[in-house]
Amino acid sequence: MSSPITIKDIAKALNISASTVSRALKNHPDISRETREAVNDLATKLRYKPNAVALSLKNSRTNTIGVIIPEVVHFFFSSVISGIEDVAYDAGYNVMVCQSNERYEREIINAQALSSNRVEGVLVSLSKETHDFTHLQNLEENGIPLVFFDRAPEELEVDKVIIDDQKAAYNATTHLIETGCKRIAHLAAPQTLGIGIKRMAGYRQALEEHGIPYRPEWVVIADSFELAGDATRNLMHLPNPPDAIFAVNDMTAVGVMKTLQRMSIQVPQKVAIIGFSAGFFSDITTPTLSSVDQHGYEMGVNAAKLLLSRIEKPTEGKYQTHYIDTHLVLRESTKRKN
Amino acid sequence: MSSPITIKDIAKALNISASTVSRALKNHPDISRETREAVNDLATKLRYKPNAVALSLKNSRTNTIGVIIPEVVHFFFSSVISGIEDVAYDAGYNVMVCQSNERYEREIINAQALSSNRVEGVLVSLSKETHDFTHLQNLEENGIPLVFFDRAPEELEVDKVIIDDQKAAYNATTHLIETGCKRIAHLAAPQTLGIGIKRMAGYRQALEEHGIPYRPEWVVIADSFELAGDATRNLMHLPNPPDAIFAVNDMTAVGVMKTLQRMSIQVPQKVAIIGFSAGFFSDITTPTLSSVDQHGYEMGVNAAKLLLSRIEKPTEGKYQTHYIDTHLVLRESTKRKN
Repeated sequence: MSSPITIKDIAKALNISASTVSRALKNHPDISRETREAVNDLATKLRYKPNAVALSLKNSRTNTIGVIIPEVVHFFFSSVISGIEDVAYDAGYNVMVCQSNERYEREIINAQALSSNRVEGVLVSLSKETHDFTHLQNLEENGIPLVFFDRAPEELEVDKVIIDDQKAAYNATTHLIETGCKRIAHLAAPQTLGIGIKRMAGYRQALEEHGIPYRPEWVVIADSFELAGDATRNLMHLPNPPDAIFAVNDMTAVGVMKTLQRMSIQVPQKVAIIGFSAGFFSDITTPTLSSVDQHGYEMGVNAAKLLLSRIEKPTEGKYQTHYIDTHLVLRESTKRKN
Repeated sequence: MSSPITIKDIAKALNISASTVSRALKNHPDISRETREAVNDLATKLRYKPNAVALSLKNSRTNTIGVIIPEVVHFFFSSVISGIEDVAYDAGYNVMVCQSNERYEREIINAQALSSNRVEGVLVSLSKETHDFTHLQNLEENGIPLVFFDRAPEELEVDKVIIDDQKAAYNATTHLIETGCKRIAHLAAPQTLGIGIKRMAGYRQALEEHGIPYRPEWVVIADSFELAGDATRNLMHLPNPPDAIFAVNDMTAVGVMKTLQRMSIQVPQKVAIIGFSAGFFSDITTPTLSSVDQHGYEMGVNAAKLLLSRIEKPTEGKYQTHYIDTHLVLRESTKRKN
């Protein structure tokens, strides 16, 4: 007996991706009518049968949603998880969280484990190292719906719940300019990460629109509490040091504040600081930290609802991008005279 | 055909618990030889067969460890998770984390979901509400080994990795006394929680040994950032307010510090503060926060190793209790003249 026809065989024969075949077989509206007809015709001709074991496993439901996040230690991700859980538990689902620890290899293991643990859907925020998405696309091909949140792939058509990072960074930088800062540095995330690129773009846009020249020496890739120390010291030792620092996240902003205080540089009088996330931190530092509120809880609620709709009605509707509004939370670290 | 004989039938016939039967069938050394023989004799007589489906599922391994924690938002638990993950990934296991959100009902759902997702072992830190452990004992009865960390049941013989909470609280309180504080308040965890009782006992022991009378009005059940506000204001409005506060965790201690600062009460000059956990927080407040370091990462490493040994050699050895050493981290919030 020859081995049974698989989705991959159909994909190869038609020279399209397995993912397209999978969606075409479900009559997904994203797939053109021509392709759907071609796929279904060939499937009938080749007597394609969905994997019976997979189907039977799928029918013994686990009522579990998997979440893959870079690191639980960030308050932003804790808030997102709370939002996800509140929606999921109300709908009778349990939530399991895996950390990639910002590593591509672990993210692959996480995805495989969630699949072999038969979760019914997965919410993902990408690790810094992830540039290939095969491990995640495999989930979809195995019938496990996928929704990205916060850090989503730029290149792929996927369901995602994100913020407008460029606009938020633009607003944060503009606020620094409006309070009288003229030499504004940016501690940025790696420029391989979508949010890193967009927040940098927002920073540059704000400078440009206010006629402030962009200076490469004022931009440092440093996106953690630890990295903020050296970055801040180097910036402050420049011949013409900055009078404000926009940090790509709150952990980094707190690192900046602590370093400036150790250098006896007054915040905000000498250097203003604004962070990004408005986590619990921003409330407990002295001075309190101005920041961009990303509404993590709301993002979690929104992403979980979208995922549940995908689990319950797998073939309905196109991929969606939901934007969560952000707003500036102005506290003491940017309070200065104009 | 009558229904097959189960562990519960044997347990009922011998008037012992199902858990004892399960362990006796595996010749667990905790079970007396008499009981083991009685169980095995009856099992043979009744033609007891372990559930075949359960066994076959057990053989298709998921290489996954489940973790149930109260809340990821606590740095202490984030550190424990890091320790667990480092050991687990090295050994080829993936880690999935469920939050109970301090709720008994969710902990039950977590345990059931981990079981139906066929994890190979579970690490648990109990929710504040949990006083019945059937949902966790069920895991063991289904052949899923269980190790408790930090918050473990007092009453049960189980594997656990904990700290000496009483001693740690004694040391923290004694440090306050040694720096000259005489009116020491305690913001405590609920006295239904083992760690709450023990930390309170350590506090009282330190007062007693130093001849300081215990005053009920200086002890308040308040163990969160939010609850610390009212508790602190009430304490400071007493006719004879405290000159030091020992908080049961760092979040609470930070809440105390922020409230005192809002009341323009100097820390540590007027009121010294010591927390418990030595998380990331204690470094970022101004003044920095003295605290008890619980070595969460080390606790995670230790608990994961113990669990892996149970997974790999299920019948070997008695239940173990491992103690993780604690030490005081002295920072600015307790620095005062004697």
